[in-house]
Order: sequence, then C-alpha cells, then structure tokens
Amino acid sequence: MHDISQYQDFFIHYLKNQSIQKEPKNLYAPIEYILGLGGKRIRPVLTLMAAEVFNTPYTTALPAAMAVEVFHNFSLVHDDIMDDAPLRRGQETVHEKWDLNTGILSGDAMLILAYQYFEQYEPIVFRNLAKLFSKTALEVCEGQQWDVDFEQRNDVTIPEYLKMIEYKTAVLVAAAMKMGAIVAKTSEKEGDLIYDFGLNLGLAFQLQDDYLDAFGDPETFGKQVGGDIIENKKTYLYLKAREFSSPEKASELEQLFSLQLEDNTAKIATAKNIFNESGASKATQDAIEMYTFKAFETLDKMDLNAEKKNILRTFGENLMGRKV
Amino acid sequence: MHDISQYQDFFIHYLKNQSIQKEPKNLYAPIEYILGLGGKRIRPVLTLMAAEVFNTPYTTALPAAMAVEVFHNFSLVHDDIMDDAPLRRGQETVHEKWDLNTGILSGDAMLILAYQYFEQYEPIVFRNLAKLFSKTALEVCEGQQWDVDFEQRNDVTIPEYLKMIEYKTAVLVAAAMKMGAIVAKTSEKEGDLIYDFGLNLGLAFQLQDDYLDAFGDPETFGKQVGGDIIENKKTYLYLKAREFSSPEKASELEQLFSLQLEDNTAKIATAKNIFNESGASKATQDAIEMYTFKAFETLDKMDLNAEKKNILRTFGENLMGRKV
Repeated sequence: MHDISQYQDFFIHYLKNQSIQKEPKNLYAPIEYILGLGGKRIRPVLTLMAAEVFNTPYTTALPAAMAVEVFHNFSLVHDDIMDDAPLRRGQETVHEKWDLNTGILSGDAMLILAYQYFEQYEPIVFRNLAKLFSKTALEVCEGQQWDVDFEQRNDVTIPEYLKMIEYKTAVLVAAAMKMGAIVAKTSEKEGDLIYDFGLNLGLAFQLQDDYLDAFGDPETFGKQVGGDIIENKKTYLYLKAREFSSPEKASELEQLFSLQLEDNTAKIATAKNIFNESGASKATQDAIEMYTFKAFETLDKMDLNAEKKNILRTFGENLMGRKV
Repeated sequence: MHDISQYQDFFIHYLKNQSIQKEPKNLYAPIEYILGLGGKRIRPVLTLMAAEVFNTPYTTALPAAMAVEVFHNFSLVHDDIMDDAPLRRGQETVHEKWDLNTGILSGDAMLILAYQYFEQYEPIVFRNLAKLFSKTALEVCEGQQWDVDFEQRNDVTIPEYLKMIEYKTAVLVAAAMKMGAIVAKTSEKEGDLIYDFGLNLGLAFQLQDDYLDAFGDPETFGKQVGGDIIENKKTYLYLKAREFSSPEKASELEQLFSLQLEDNTAKIATAKNIFNESGASKATQDAIEMYTFKAFETLDKMDLNAEKKNILRTFGENLMGRKV
C-alpha cells in the first residue's frame, strides 16, 4: 500500500503519458487542457487505493482510474456550460477559452474516451466496469437535472436534496472505489460494501462542502466563502433552516435568498446568523457525522484485515479533515 | 429474411415498448420526444437486416439496433445545438422546445443509454459491440469537428472532405451493419467485409445527398432544394467546381459562396450552372457510382449465398434510388 500523495503521483504520471494530442486539434486540445488543470484527483486515487486494499497492484487499476477522471472532467465541462461559469480551478472554462460548440463536442468525446479505457481489461472485467460506469454516469446526469430543476422550486424537501447530492456527487465516489474492487476481482459482496463506504463518505463530503461554504476558513477552503449564499443556492443548511423556522422566519429566509446584490457582506452575515440560530448548522454537522459514521460502520462488515480497514478509515478521516 | 418496411415495423414496435419515461421528467421527456419524431430508421434496419443475412433472427439484434438509433439521435440533438437549427423533421428541435441546458444534458444521457443497450448481450458480444461503438462514436465527433473547422477554411481539399463525410456519416452506417454481424457471431473477416460494404454505401449516400441538394426533385427530396447553396456549404459539388475552374471562375464561385441573401433564386441558378459547366456535377455522379460499385464489389468477396447477396444489393440499389 502507498499513501495518498503517492497515488496522486502515480496517477498524474500515467495521465501525462496518455497521448491525447490527436487530430482534429480543436476537439482534442480542450480535452488535454481540462485534464491538465489539476485538482486533487480524489476519484482516481480512490480507484487505485481500493484495488490495493483488495491485494491488486495499483498499476492494474490505472486505466479504470483514468476513465473515472476523464468522466469527471466531462461532467465539469458540460456543467460549466450549463452554469455559465467563467472559471474552473482559477483558469478559463473550456467554453470560455474556446466556444460553446467546442465545449459540447469535446465533452461528448471525453464521455466516449472514458469508456475506451475499459477496453484494456478482459471481457468479464470490461463488462462489469462499463455496466457500473453507465449506471453511474446516468445517475450523475439525473442528479444534475434535479439540481437544475430545484433552482426553479421553493418546495424542495430534505430527502429530495439528499437524493440529488447522492446522484450528482456521491455515486461517482462510490463507483470509483467499486471499480478498484472489480479490477481486483473481489466477491460481489465486498464490491457492494466498498461502494456503500464510498457513497456515505461522498454524502458526508458534499454536506461538509455545503457547511464549509458558509462556515469554512477562507484561508483553507479553496472556494469563495459564502458563495452558495451569494448565488442563492438552496443547500442542506438552507433547507434545514427553513424547516426549523417559524413561518415568518422562513419567509424572511426565502426573501434573503432571492436577492442579487453588489455587496454581499450583510447578506452572508444574516444568512449565517439564521443558520446558527435555527439549529441548521448543528443539524448539518450532525448529518455529516452520521454519514461518516455509516461509512465506517460499513468498513466493519468487510472481509479485510485491520491494517487495510485502518487505511480506508484514515483516508476517510483525512477527507473529512478531522478525527471522528 | 424480411423486407425493409417489415424491419422498420419491427424496430418501431420495439422502440415504442421501451420505457423511457422515467424521473426526472425534464431529462427523459426530450429523449422520448426526439426518438418519437420518426425518420426512416435506416441505421437500425441495417443492423436487423445484417443479423438475418448472417442467419440470426432479427430479434437478437434489436437492442444493438436500438443503441445505434439512440446514438444517432444523440448526435442530432447536439448537432442541432451547434448548428442553431430550429427544426428537425419539421418539428421543433430539443433545445428550441426546451432550452440549451436540456439539449446538452438529455443528449449526454442518450449517449450513455446507447451503451446500456449492449448490456443485454453476453460478455464477449458486449465487449465487441461496445468497442466498435466507442470507436465509431469518437469518429462521428471527429467528423463533426472537421465539419465545424471546414466552415472557417477556404482551402479544404477533396480528400479532407471525403474523410469528413466518412467520419460524420458513413462510419455509423458501416458500424450499424457490422453490429448485426457481431450479434450473429460471424468471423471477423465477414464482419469487416460488411463494414466496408456499409462504409462505401454510406459515402455514396452522402455524396448523393450533396448532389440532390442542388439537383433533386423538390417533390421527393424532403429537404429544401438548394439549401446547401443558400448556407454556403462547401460540398463535394462546390469543391470539384473550384478544382475544375480557372482562377477567375474559382474566385467568382468563392464570391458567390460568401453571400447572405434574402432571395436566393438567382444565387441557386448561378451555382447550379457553374456546377454543370465546370464538370462538377458529372464528377459527383461518377464518385457516387464509384462508391456504390465499391460497395457491391465487397459483396462479391463475402461468404454468402446468392439470395443473401441479392438482398444486400437490392437494399443498396433502393437506397441509391436507382438500378446500377
């Protein structure tokens, strides 16, 4: 086994050795650009790590890890078009740097390229990987559609929101880990358990992202603190605050989350105050803890030695940035 | 074996029985809409027919045929966005009826759904289908990118144009037929031969489409005659006319193909005149005949009885609308 930063290095080395510079240039240059923008490469690292947890060298899992990363970047390129986002990781988004058509078409090509990485495996493994991948990719599309739909609605429930973040974010984390298990030819049971581990960890991670967006340290969070409040995003914090508030307070909150302001300092302070006073902050922290706990509970059911379980637990703890 | 209209009926019956109405509605309703718009269903019919030519019931080939049709419609949805087309088969395009984001996202979902249809086959067949499909889908993207690139260029050569229509149109016709062979578990040689048959027929068909766009009968062509001339599309007719013309005539043609007019009657007449007088019309007809002949030559090499060869030849003749 290796540590996270080693898996990152192995993956980046593999990524850099892929020959993506093909003709026509206008199709492939944006793909090389977005894949080169960086990021923590968490998903492919999970695939490599999962393979080694199940006693298979990470090298065997590299093509599957690459498929996961290429798919993730496909979704970023198309989501950035839908959100009309100018920047991604501090650099121009593909549709900004090139144009809309290039963003659509090079995204499409990436989705296909992801499938092609599975061709490096034998038929049974190929089929299992592609099947899980298709199911996951479709769920990610469904999650994105729900996210778009929810922007137009004022009656989104907590279960609906949880389903949305599960599909949009958590299933890919779960699938990335299960792909390591597939490559390692584990039993179906072990594959399902590591999927559940990834799913709950993914949910905890996304809820923590919601929480830190309001209450994170500007020095370490990476994104603009208060960004969700500025954009009127109805996150878990918002939905819980509305649930816990009196009709008057709830309507004040809805009012606040319809404003488009130049200076958001007061809006952010007011929203954070409501999140704290309503108990929404506490409820969000409880939910993060609950999903993290569920993930670790799944570990206990797995047929792995203590050392391997500890590696997965440590990864989860580091991802959540705290010792549970 | 059955005739074309029977294969169409079988396919449409299968298509209508697919449950595409799932949640979220805003993702799946556009998919059902575009798949229901009709069309001749040539590509899935080719898959069914190819399977039966190789002694396998068409029913076995239905999921693969469906994958081909779903992919074809995915490419229509995304191409219509890129071309900013308001209409498709006389009805509103998806991005017009819904919006840009819906067009992008439901297109993405269709690409994934296409792969899922292959899951109905055993691992080896699944792998062969998915592999051919990925290769083909990527080529279609490359062909579309070249088409976009060529709009900005004045120096496109005939070989470049042929490569573009091969990738954008012919490879999917070829792959549709080869999928019938894969499902029928033919030898690789027979699969490659039917692929070549489809590829050459697809090229002949696209060149004929170029020809009929200028010289077709408005009663039977289906699209607006002269549409390519109005839109300044540099088709085979245009490229050949430029090649065959004196520098002065060539520059007159380039001039003509930069005009954006209200009334295109004179422009269409002038262009058709140049196509005829330069010899471009004759050269296009020759090329159509050459590719049709190449397709039929491939048939001779195949290990099929005379009846089966005759069925494929008759299909080709009907598709090209004339007895060669």
